[in-house]
Amino acid sequence: MVVKTAERVETSAIETVLAALKKSLGNRISTGTDVREQHGSTLTWLPNQPPDAVVYPQSTEEVVTIVKLCSEHSVPVIPFGAGTSLEGHLNAPHGGLSLDFSHMNKVLAVHEEDLDCVVEAGVTRQQLNEHLRDTGLFFPVDPGADATLGGMAATRASGTNAVRYGTMRDAVINLTAVMADGSVVRTARRARKSSAGYDLTRLLVGSEGTLGIITELSLRLHGIPESVLSAVCPFETVQGACDATIMAIQLGLGLARVEFLDEVQIEACNKHSKLDLPVSPTLFLEFHGTTASTREQVETFAQIAADNGGGEYQWAERAEDRNKLWTARHDAYWAARTYRPGAEVIATDVCVPISRLAECLVETGKDIAELGLVAPIVGHIGDGNFHVLPLIDMDNGQEVEAARGFLDRLVGRALEMDGTCTGEHGVGTGKMKYMRAEHGSGVDVMRAIKKTLDPHNIFNPGKVVEVA
Amino acid sequence: MVVKTAERVETSAIETVLAALKKSLGNRISTGTDVREQHGSTLTWLPNQPPDAVVYPQSTEEVVTIVKLCSEHSVPVIPFGAGTSLEGHLNAPHGGLSLDFSHMNKVLAVHEEDLDCVVEAGVTRQQLNEHLRDTGLFFPVDPGADATLGGMAATRASGTNAVRYGTMRDAVINLTAVMADGSVVRTARRARKSSAGYDLTRLLVGSEGTLGIITELSLRLHGIPESVLSAVCPFETVQGACDATIMAIQLGLGLARVEFLDEVQIEACNKHSKLDLPVSPTLFLEFHGTTASTREQVETFAQIAADNGGGEYQWAERAEDRNKLWTARHDAYWAARTYRPGAEVIATDVCVPISRLAECLVETGKDIAELGLVAPIVGHIGDGNFHVLPLIDMDNGQEVEAARGFLDRLVGRALEMDGTCTGEHGVGTGKMKYMRAEHGSGVDVMRAIKKTLDPHNIFNPGKVVEVA
Repeated sequence: MVVKTAERVETSAIETVLAALKKSLGNRISTGTDVREQHGSTLTWLPNQPPDAVVYPQSTEEVVTIVKLCSEHSVPVIPFGAGTSLEGHLNAPHGGLSLDFSHMNKVLAVHEEDLDCVVEAGVTRQQLNEHLRDTGLFFPVDPGADATLGGMAATRASGTNAVRYGTMRDAVINLTAVMADGSVVRTARRARKSSAGYDLTRLLVGSEGTLGIITELSLRLHGIPESVLSAVCPFETVQGACDATIMAIQLGLGLARVEFLDEVQIEACNKHSKLDLPVSPTLFLEFHGTTASTREQVETFAQIAADNGGGEYQWAERAEDRNKLWTARHDAYWAARTYRPGAEVIATDVCVPISRLAECLVETGKDIAELGLVAPIVGHIGDGNFHVLPLIDMDNGQEVEAARGFLDRLVGRALEMDGTCTGEHGVGTGKMKYMRAEHGSGVDVMRAIKKTLDPHNIFNPGKVVEVA
Repeated sequence: MVVKTAERVETSAIETVLAALKKSLGNRISTGTDVREQHGSTLTWLPNQPPDAVVYPQSTEEVVTIVKLCSEHSVPVIPFGAGTSLEGHLNAPHGGLSLDFSHMNKVLAVHEEDLDCVVEAGVTRQQLNEHLRDTGLFFPVDPGADATLGGMAATRASGTNAVRYGTMRDAVINLTAVMADGSVVRTARRARKSSAGYDLTRLLVGSEGTLGIITELSLRLHGIPESVLSAVCPFETVQGACDATIMAIQLGLGLARVEFLDEVQIEACNKHSKLDLPVSPTLFLEFHGTTASTREQVETFAQIAADNGGGEYQWAERAEDRNKLWTARHDAYWAARTYRPGAEVIATDVCVPISRLAECLVETGKDIAELGLVAPIVGHIGDGNFHVLPLIDMDNGQEVEAARGFLDRLVGRALEMDGTCTGEHGVGTGKMKYMRAEHGSGVDVMRAIKKTLDPHNIFNPGKVVEVA
């Protein structure tokens, strides 16, 4: 479904900008319907709103040229990475240009001694890790999809191992960004820390392309651990799984990943991946460290699990055994997607203080049951962050309405527990309506910043905060 | 020395504000010279610029009242924690009110399961750790001084164990701040992560009271490690000490602290603390983890040190033995201060990528020698951050000039190496002149933010970025 809105930018403005750009970009401009629609909705369940054109810059300087032209003619600019965002971040409600960064995909430098690297915004995380293969280093942030690093920074992505390595908030050392006036800002030096002025890096991380267009990034890397152990453990109750996780974190166990799958998700995985896991709340764990320390951790966790109603605890060391143990987790997304054929997946997430997580999961499960929805749950439980994947028949109006009510209550529940409406998916257009409830007058501060840094509202307009 | 500037706020405006405040604050207003001077320069070597009055709020609501009044009458507001900042952060070049947070010193909540706490801005880090004593948790950020947590957040403080636990950037979950229009913003929920909008927390952390007045904070805590081992090792060369540190970090060794003292600092420590450490570049280390893992780490580091020209390597486990090993480091600041009687200490810091650190230290040492200055060096070497403490006879104009030239070259050298003019001391007034060289057009972005969030420039005016 393609939705047109009334407030689209004038066609003449687009034509003027594209004509001017043709001189420098040549055939790196696309106005074909397929390409535009591909860039207008991506993985979100929200209706597609395609841009007027897609352009493929090859350098920061080209982005400057594009931004200056678009600024002059008030044409929206929407940066596009791999198109894996989930909340309508890439929709073009006002039309404009999608800036596809697939041509800016060079790893510019790896500084092994500094444990950092410099990349163009279009490099994907898997591409970076391929590039690092012989260095003994890796880039940890793993949102699942093979997103671009520019996109991951723009959306403050995180994922399975944020519990140990942090999110993009922590991973980005500095950014190069083109601002709405065409100036180029490098937000910080390459030092590991600084107290020299406002943290422009963190201001742009998570700003979803609304404050500046990220073209380059310096990122923190980590040494590949000597030893990686994986484990799986079913629990009698959600509370038991949460309590075990809390205890492990309090003890400072080196949990690199601790993932929660609820019973529905386990059922979906059993079906999809032909497994016979016990259908109960289950933790998938990964420990990083030296050979001695991971062994110590995996044994300590066995005791913690046993004390909290854990069932058969399996762990593995060799890569193939680890992959086998983790099959259900690896395939969770596709298992969920195919669990109810024909249904659309509404991927959403919230994040709460971990002390409230069990309660939040249980109440959410009750709501799902009462509505008669099918909605597997997968959680980055160490961070208090979980995904719910309602599988919705979009032709069934009543079901769609039920899903909408469910989403509102899910967010309301998270906020009531001092949590956030999104732990890692971002705001896009999908979660704008919750911003006031979450941030109160903080929304006015965000809006003031947006207005002063992008006075003509050309950067990804209609996202994160309304400025009209 | 007390300096008066021409652009001080009108006395009548101050009088109006103080008269209005007397109704609500009663005797929590001080205009005595001693108290004002105490609040006007603190530990900086910059000349004292006292505020017109010091007020002691007891709640966020009182801060709102003060800010609204000051806004109405364009009276500067300068938040004051423990007065341990070093770059003139607390000077009142335009006069105004110093807001002393010593009455807002309550620990409001400790959430053991969430590993976090909520404190008023005037709680000091040692007070918090005292409060946590029976919980098995601790707050790690340790800048040396017993600073307030509000002040540490405002200046993005870090210190000895940032290499493992991060800086205030990482430690703050959310802040409550009073903005220049009197609105109260809570920058985030208590969830460990969020991607819901602009990162107002990180915008205020390090803004040095120029964008908002921090009144409350939620902070991340950590489990006290099962085992702590300390070690000391002299090295033949600065390069050797740096290379050993780099290697240890690449291996993912759980270094909680790795401190560097240069030969001058060691000499000062030997004299001050009656020690007989070999006079050579020396590392002071601390390892955190389980009993087995710290033992493993300390042994791995022994090998790394030996491979890099390390001398006699000593380590200890019992608290009293660890304290003895670390005596020189613990007393370093006072040893430096007393090393040249009568001299003023100019405490400064820079931070560079660790690959450039040895070179930066060596060149800085050469500069010191050529100038004939006495200037011990202490470094948080794992972060590439070091302090130089020129001991200057302030009555000797030539020496003061030499010191000024030295400071400029130190910063120039750090910037040339892609480092920052300050790793942890902040900008205050002392480092404003380097901001353009470090941030380029980023300064314009900072200025735009300052202007929009504090249009009357009442929050700590004349600091971080000029807006006039």
